[in-house]
Formats: sequence, C-alpha cells, structure tokens
Amino acid sequence: IREEMEKKAATEERGGEDVEQVVNPWQVSAGGKIDYDKLIVQFGCQRLDQALIERVQRLTGRPPHVFLRRGVFFAHRDFNEILDAYERGEKFYLYTGRGPSSEALHLGHLIPFMFTKYLQDAFKVPLVIQLTDDEKCMWKNLSVEESQRLARENAKDIIACGFDITRTFIFSDFDYVGGAFYKNMVKVAKCVTYNKVVGIFGFTGEDHIGKISFPPVQAVPSFPSSFPHLFSGEDKLRCLIPCAIDQDPYFRMTRDVAPRLGNHKPALIESSFFPALQGETGKMSASDPNSAIYVTDSGKDIGSKIRKYAFSGGQDSKEKHMKLGANLEVDIPIKYLGFFLEDDAELEHIRTEYGAGRLFTGQVKDRLIQVLTELVERHRRARAAVTDEVLHLQF
Amino acid sequence: IREEMEKKAATEERGGEDVEQVVNPWQVSAGGKIDYDKLIVQFGCQRLDQALIERVQRLTGRPPHVFLRRGVFFAHRDFNEILDAYERGEKFYLYTGRGPSSEALHLGHLIPFMFTKYLQDAFKVPLVIQLTDDEKCMWKNLSVEESQRLARENAKDIIACGFDITRTFIFSDFDYVGGAFYKNMVKVAKCVTYNKVVGIFGFTGEDHIGKISFPPVQAVPSFPSSFPHLFSGEDKLRCLIPCAIDQDPYFRMTRDVAPRLGNHKPALIESSFFPALQGETGKMSASDPNSAIYVTDSGKDIGSKIRKYAFSGGQDSKEKHMKLGANLEVDIPIKYLGFFLEDDAELEHIRTEYGAGRLFTGQVKDRLIQVLTELVERHRRARAAVTDEVLHLQF
Repeated sequence: IREEMEKKAATEERGGEDVEQVVNPWQVSAGGKIDYDKLIVQFGCQRLDQALIERVQRLTGRPPHVFLRRGVFFAHRDFNEILDAYERGEKFYLYTGRGPSSEALHLGHLIPFMFTKYLQDAFKVPLVIQLTDDEKCMWKNLSVEESQRLARENAKDIIACGFDITRTFIFSDFDYVGGAFYKNMVKVAKCVTYNKVVGIFGFTGEDHIGKISFPPVQAVPSFPSSFPHLFSGEDKLRCLIPCAIDQDPYFRMTRDVAPRLGNHKPALIESSFFPALQGETGKMSASDPNSAIYVTDSGKDIGSKIRKYAFSGGQDSKEKHMKLGANLEVDIPIKYLGFFLEDDAELEHIRTEYGAGRLFTGQVKDRLIQVLTELVERHRRARAAVTDEVLHLQF
Repeated sequence: IREEMEKKAATEERGGEDVEQVVNPWQVSAGGKIDYDKLIVQFGCQRLDQALIERVQRLTGRPPHVFLRRGVFFAHRDFNEILDAYERGEKFYLYTGRGPSSEALHLGHLIPFMFTKYLQDAFKVPLVIQLTDDEKCMWKNLSVEESQRLARENAKDIIACGFDITRTFIFSDFDYVGGAFYKNMVKVAKCVTYNKVVGIFGFTGEDHIGKISFPPVQAVPSFPSSFPHLFSGEDKLRCLIPCAIDQDPYFRMTRDVAPRLGNHKPALIESSFFPALQGETGKMSASDPNSAIYVTDSGKDIGSKIRKYAFSGGQDSKEKHMKLGANLEVDIPIKYLGFFLEDDAELEHIRTEYGAGRLFTGQVKDRLIQVLTELVERHRRARAAVTDEVLHLQF
C-alpha cells in the first residue's frame, strides 16, 4: 500500500507540472500538490511577505498568529492599504463566511474562523459572517429547510470559535437577503455579463440560473451599505476578507465592480488549503469522513484516524528510518502540527529530530493526537455553551 | 404624408406574412400588425371563446367587462380551471404588475389594471400587484433610487384605478424581496438552466447577469407561499394572472417549474396590445410622447393629440369618404372607442355610420376626445385622493 501511495504521489507530482491546476470555489485540482506560487501569478494577488507580517506585529502590539508566522495565510490583495488606513486611525471591518453543507465542521473549516478571531481581537474591529445557505441549497441540492438547519448548526460552531459577540453579525442569506442587501446585489449584477462569470467561474449553458445569480450574493457583504443597521453613514468603511484562496474568484469579480459603484475594493488575506489526512493534494473531501478530523470526533476517533490514515513521511523500517529520517515534505502529522502546535520551539525540535530519524512516526502522531484532542475538547465545551439564547442574539 | 403612411402600412402588412413576429417582454415586432392567432399557436395558449365569457357572466352574475366582450383579453391558460375551482367554492387570488419605467402611465398601461379591478370586484378575491423596480433599474439603467421613486408614483396611479384596498397588496421588489419570497426565487432558479432562459427570453452572453437572475423574481408571486402574511397555510391557493400577452414567456417558464415545486400552475388571462395613436403595429413607444395619451394629459392635450396624430381610416376627400366610407380596420379612433366607450349600441352605431361614410373622422374623433377626457379626468380626481397616508397603508 505504501508503495502504491508513493507511486500515486509521484505521478501526481509529475502531473502537477503538466496538468493545468484548477482552483475555484467548487473545484480544486492540480493533478498533485497545488503550486501556490503559480496560483498567486495566475490570480494576480500578492505574496504576504515577512515585512508585512512584521508590520502587523508592530501595529497590533502582539505576536503574529501561527497562521501568519507559518505561511498558512500566504497571499493578499491590498492588505497593506488596510494597514495604512488603520495606521491613520481609520476603521475597517472583517467579512468572512461559510457554505453550510455539512452537519459538523472539520479542522479545515476552522482555519479561517480561528484566524478571523485573531484579526478581530488584534485590530478590535466589527465582523460580518455570511452563511450561504442559498448557495448550498442550489449547489448541493439540499432543501431550503435543510440548508437553513445546517446554517444554524454551523453558526454554533462558528460562535464557539470565541468571537467578540458585541462586534459580530452572523447571518444566513435566506434570512437576510432583501432591502439594502438586495439593492446592492442588483447593482453588482448590472455590472457583470454572463460571459464574464463564465470566464471567472466556468459555468456552462446547462448550469441553472441560480448559480449564475449567486456571485452578487457573496460579493455584496464587501460593501458596508449592505448592512445599514451596522454601518449607517459609513459607506467608505474598508473591508478585509480572510478566506481560503479558492474564494478569490468571487472577490476578483467584486473588486472589479466596486469602484464603478463608488465603493472601496475589498482587501483580502488568503490561506492555502488544509490537507486531507491521506496527503496534500487539495481540499478535504466531504464525502469521505476518514479524510478529515471533525469537531465532533471523540478523542478515540481522533486517535484511530490519525494512526490509521495520516500519511506518514517516515521510512518503512526502523533501520531505514534511523538512517534516512522522515520526509517532512509529505508528512501529514508534521503539516497538522504546523497548523495547531503553537510552540515554535517545540515544533522546530520535532521537525529536526523526526527529519534526522531520531523521532518515529508513532511518537509524532501521539503528540498530534494530544494537540488535536485538546483543541477539539476545548471547541466542544465552547459549543455546548452556545445556548439557543446566545444563538438567537447572534443569528 | 397619408400616401406614405398607407404605403408603410401596406409594406408592413406584406412583411407580416414573411417576417417572423417577435413578442417578448422587451420586444414586440412583427413587421406590421401582430397576428394574434399565430401568437396563440406559437405560445401554446388557448383562445378565450364565447362559451367561457358566458360562463364568467353566469358565475359572477354581472355582464362581462367591455375588454371581454370586445376581445381585448383574447387568450388564456387554464382560466377554465380557475372557474371550475370557483364553482366548487374554492378561492383564488389575482396577480398582476408593472415595471415602473416612466413617471406617468398611458392608457395602454391602464388596461390590465382596469380589467383586474373588474375581476377583483366580480370574484371578490385578493390581489397582489408587483412593481418590478429592480427590473427597470437593470433594463433601463435607472438608479435604484429613481426606480423606487417611479414605483411609488406609479403605485398612486394604480391605487387610483379603484381596487378594494382591503384585499390588495402592492409591493416593490426592492422593498419586498427577501424571506419566503427569496426562498421561492432560489427554488425556481434551481429548476431553470441558462440555455432554457436563452430559449425563452433570447438573452445573449453579453447580457448582464441581473437580467438572467430576474425571471424568478417575476415568477414567484404566482405562488401563495411567497406571501406568508397574506396566504399562510394556503399553499394550494390558485393564482390567476391578468396581463398583456408579451408577459407570457415569464409565466410559461413559471408553469413549467410550478409542479416540480409542488405548486399549482398559475392561470393566465391575456390581452392584446393597446395600439399607438399612429397605428396598430405593436406597443406604444415610451420614447415618443405623441404616440400615446397619458393620464397626466390635459383635455387640451388629448384633443390636440387625437386630432393631430390618431391614424384615420377615413377617405382623403369628403366626396370619396361619402362614397367609400371609412376603413375601420385601420382607424385608431374606432379602435380606441372599442376599448373605452362602454355603450355597445352607441359603438355599433358609430361603426356603421362611419363605415358607410355618413359620419366623418372629425366627428368620431370628437366623441373619442370626450370619452378619453372624462376617463382621464376621473382618473386624475381618484389619483389626487391617494394621499401619502393611503399610499403608506398599501405600499
């Protein structure tokens, strides 16, 4: 099996050089590892460099988040302008979201929310969170009622990430579309031709018109005038969107349209994808529960998933491993620790020892299981505290 | 000039046999007179025959409206099923609307509202009136604010038609889209592909996505669940739509989708177009104020427009006219009297005398000026009574 997987990985690696990588909100495929450098060029965004990270640290007076230090959020659009504005004493707001297509979130889903919480705390700014239940109803063929139920369940997990509830507005499209929000949808839709959305999103003539109608729905939370109860009279407030980079097409479209409507272009700060347990070839698959750790998994589930499925870069015999060391480039436990083990020194120690063959896969997996079990336990406690009353206040 | 116009009419008549007629919500062209019989076949609707008109009379216990007696409303879809349901004691509701693209309405705009008022009175049923300010904002490139202002102005003219205000709900899309209405829009959009709307409405790849998104907005008032504050628990209530036949494409699409969403297909009762003063070659042109009588025209305006522009079927000399009589087929004063002179006997008398050359164009025009001045005066008084308070209650 190991040999087969390595062969598969090798083929994919080769493929990655030839096959064009496709990254859009519904498809991530590259015939292997995503080439993020190529993606930055392809999308026309900018790399989030060390100087910018140091500027964040200086302006906020706190250490940059793990996801910044370790390059999880690696690209941006006009993030420097947001920092310029902040430095001048201007305010901005954060906008992120989720398409509620599953009952429970997995670790990959938590990434943008954990990072957004950090940004909210560091900059002390308001936040809007869009739950695109309309999108999932249309793409996943869920009923309206089921999409709304999932939105509600997911909202509990999102609130459990610890946002400042006095500065956070979570909404479902089915609940909130209308009024100022709908007016902005119409304004955006007027500026975008069918051919344009085909170019950006790859729609075909056999796609239903709900899909073609949707991009303005995800675009308009970028404009403060879509939230008159929050930002009345603040039409020039800037917006910063933390998201995974597969959402970039929506906001490329939005940025194209924004000046024509008298709005600032939203700024973006974009993450790479959280890898599947089986290896780093794109996003996790919702159809395979063993490809991801869910926030509903028990400690026992986490242990057995990591031990059974987490792709290891360790060698296949003790002797060989002690001689050659682990291949950290493909090792999933090391990748996951890179996301969730906060202690830089400990992570560096594990990488060195494992890479030199002095630590074994089992030991690294044990440490990961411990880290994830704590994280999931903490999340579960926080979620249990999200009563219907709290939910009602927020959502 | 007369010769030129006759030549033009002759060419158009000829063209009418060769050129394919195009009738959709944004274009009415036939290279001459619309062939309504052909349109019935082309659209697949049914002719509104004498038996059905007599059934309306029997069921409502009142004489059929002038627009029924004289074939202004000439086609339908499932109107018989509405009457079946009514006869069984079931209720239904009426749905009509207007795209608010002009400050004042002209006589052609009044036709569906005058007829809808008659239906509401005769059947004692609730009515919803949609003002598609979103559509006009997108098609006519009006600002959101201007579209909404026109919707408000038009609502006054509509209320002035004398609806039973206790059973009437007038709404603007910009105000009302959201909630149950938006959920139904998404449900409809899921059932219709881009290729399908191209086939129905003739959109192209260079059309903006607002146009492609709009058909569900006009579709969903056909479903009672779009109005939970009016029809809660009455999801099986039938809907009857009085409209001009150019709106048929929207409702062909709606009827196609309705059963898949568990709804009744809306029934339709459809009118021909009100002719321009210059002659019967389609709808009136909003860009030429001299092609129509507006409800804001003074008695003097009406007089001069009719005398100057109303195309006459009379002969070009007194002698010739007395010998040959008027050509009633092309005579606009006779057509207009057919819409607005309620007295069947008087109309028949005028037709006979004018056709025999014993009445002259000037006399027929005088009678028409009198009829229209009274109608417009009555409308103006009714509109003046629509105070902001009344408007606020209704809209």
